[in-house]
Amino acid sequence: MTPPRLLASASACVLLLLAAGSVLAKEEQTTPEEEIRYRQSVMIVLGRARADLNAMAKGDVPFDAGSAQKTAALAASLAALTLRGYGPGTEKGAPTKADLKIWKEMAKYKASNDKMVAEIGKLPAAAKDKGALKDALGDLGKTCKSCHDTYKLVENRN
Amino acid sequence: MTPPRLLASASACVLLLLAAGSVLAKEEQTTPEEEIRYRQSVMIVLGRARADLNAMAKGDVPFDAGSAQKTAALAASLAALTLRGYGPGTEKGAPTKADLKIWKEMAKYKASNDKMVAEIGKLPAAAKDKGALKDALGDLGKTCKSCHDTYKLVENRN
Repeated sequence: MTPPRLLASASACVLLLLAAGSVLAKEEQTTPEEEIRYRQSVMIVLGRARADLNAMAKGDVPFDAGSAQKTAALAASLAALTLRGYGPGTEKGAPTKADLKIWKEMAKYKASNDKMVAEIGKLPAAAKDKGALKDALGDLGKTCKSCHDTYKLVENRN
Repeated sequence: MTPPRLLASASACVLLLLAAGSVLAKEEQTTPEEEIRYRQSVMIVLGRARADLNAMAKGDVPFDAGSAQKTAALAASLAALTLRGYGPGTEKGAPTKADLKIWKEMAKYKASNDKMVAEIGKLPAAAKDKGALKDALGDLGKTCKSCHDTYKLVENRN
């Protein structure tokens, strides 16, 4: 590597570290309680979006492709946030049903979360058709259950 | 109105009422506590989206147009949900900072909410440019403050 290229790489590294530092600094301004409340909120809004879609897929509410696609897009955006709020120190600080196993096996938890994100990622396209939506929600439901069975406690701890 | 047109109008009304009934039936399955928790969750996730955008606009985090537009789109989708959870009976049932005035002057509250939705609706386009985003967030901040000053209590009630 020639010195100018080395210098460019080093500069990029410094920029990257500064960027990471800024994000970290920002997240550190929140308390564990706020992080816990945030991650619960994401799941609550996501859960309602799923319930809205389920109601349409089951026929409890008339199917409307436009509305379903909008809700599915929202669900996909929320799914992308579901790993926030699990940083160091967020395992306690407020009542939570998040099993401590999550922090002990974060890589496994992330892999489980990735499956949910992938299934929710299929909803926007599926939401064009009632039958396809029902199938996609069925698959998603299994992914939800599997992760909740492993990582979500029945009662709050803390 | 000719009888066939009258019949068509009557049918449309029945369909509309059935649709409204279904939505109502679904919402009625939730408890006031769940509705309160839901509306708080929407605001918490929305608040974090706003904080993320503010951090970029202020330079605490490097500005990234792609990421800003994504977050702004999420904020706009969430803003569209902010009037859910204020149905009859949801004024109590869990700790809440929502002033009882909301249910007494719902039309005024909705008008206030509409202003926020309109300001947040400008964020996705503004998020392409750091300066424009900063300006849009400034306008939004005033709308947030104005509504919170009127309708959000400092301490939880219930």
